[in-house]
Amino acid sequence: MKTKPGQESPGVRAKLLDAAVSLFSEQGVAGTTVAEIARRGGVTSAMVHYYFKSKDQLLDAVVEEKLIGQFIAFVAGGLDGNGADPFALTEGLVWRIVEASDRMPWLPPLWMREVISEGGALREKLIRRVDLAKQERFKACVAAAQKRGAVNPGVNPQLLFMSVVALTMLPLSMAKSWDRIPLIGRVSKRDLGRHVIALLMRGLSAPSGSSKSKRKTP
Amino acid sequence: MKTKPGQESPGVRAKLLDAAVSLFSEQGVAGTTVAEIARRGGVTSAMVHYYFKSKDQLLDAVVEEKLIGQFIAFVAGGLDGNGADPFALTEGLVWRIVEASDRMPWLPPLWMREVISEGGALREKLIRRVDLAKQERFKACVAAAQKRGAVNPGVNPQLLFMSVVALTMLPLSMAKSWDRIPLIGRVSKRDLGRHVIALLMRGLSAPSGSSKSKRKTP
Repeated sequence: MKTKPGQESPGVRAKLLDAAVSLFSEQGVAGTTVAEIARRGGVTSAMVHYYFKSKDQLLDAVVEEKLIGQFIAFVAGGLDGNGADPFALTEGLVWRIVEASDRMPWLPPLWMREVISEGGALREKLIRRVDLAKQERFKACVAAAQKRGAVNPGVNPQLLFMSVVALTMLPLSMAKSWDRIPLIGRVSKRDLGRHVIALLMRGLSAPSGSSKSKRKTP
Repeated sequence: MKTKPGQESPGVRAKLLDAAVSLFSEQGVAGTTVAEIARRGGVTSAMVHYYFKSKDQLLDAVVEEKLIGQFIAFVAGGLDGNGADPFALTEGLVWRIVEASDRMPWLPPLWMREVISEGGALREKLIRRVDLAKQERFKACVAAAQKRGAVNPGVNPQLLFMSVVALTMLPLSMAKSWDRIPLIGRVSKRDLGRHVIALLMRGLSAPSGSSKSKRKTP
């Protein structure tokens, strides 16, 4: 039974946002109509317009409430309460992103398609609104640890956050296809998390000798 | 002056493929019409149909000739002639991908949007055709080096190739936007290459002590 305007129920708006992000994740923002969102949410198209006025306003709500309020807030929570240890902070980030992809399976594919991709429908909206203060503190903390010799001097603190996101989000966005690529085969999200942590914990550590740090890079 | 069917010139087909990959990279496969490809290639739409019959055949040619023949062949070339040293192989891969993004600037955004993204227009075609034999040898070589204690035991050889691609291709796909994200700021593709190499060379190295390898991972 479809809900109609005037029969507001408190969960309808949230349900419509959930329907929107699943559909956007599966078939892209441009490939999804308001009518499809209404159908998946079990309401009429008029009801979607009642709550969001236009598709553009719906996208604003997706960025504000789902990407920033739900995903980024949860992941950035991994940057709280770990003091200034870049190893613990990095490990916290990785596990938060892996856990986020369990809680919000729509997230990594949507991120790749509509945030990372050139011309992605949510990219500009997100860049305009997101507050990266915690990520900036993470960068500063890595740079400080590097100065005192506790972090690999070859690592660029400006690029580390993006590296953590890339190492986790790109594979997670194709998790459904892993078993179809023989090179990858049967691995779990936990396996991915452990692999990324192993690479990063060792990769960030300062070399004790100097042999590795003298490796030639063009 | 537009070229018409019957006035074949040897470079037209190649020019049309180039026009197609730039447009696909900028606005996606679904968002690009045959008429736009013709216009950018300086020919009529009839000429595009003359060379490729249908948009689907054009996509086949893009996968076969540009993604596999040009990009993957070039990158996999970094896996030749470096013997069985996983460090040299990894370093070669990173620099090949960075160089590929200079030679084929259309590549990383197209890859993110149409290969990595769920439902990407080139993904199935690529999975069906690509030969990952060299990538399989890379995996085997990392696993062998790990067995003899020369590589970080926490790293998963099945996932390493994907990690190298993620660390390079994801940032490269958004290279045009780096200076608009204060967290990243002014860095070059060379800076990215050096950062990734520093992280991976150290990350892959076997710990001399055992303290790092005992880090708890859930």
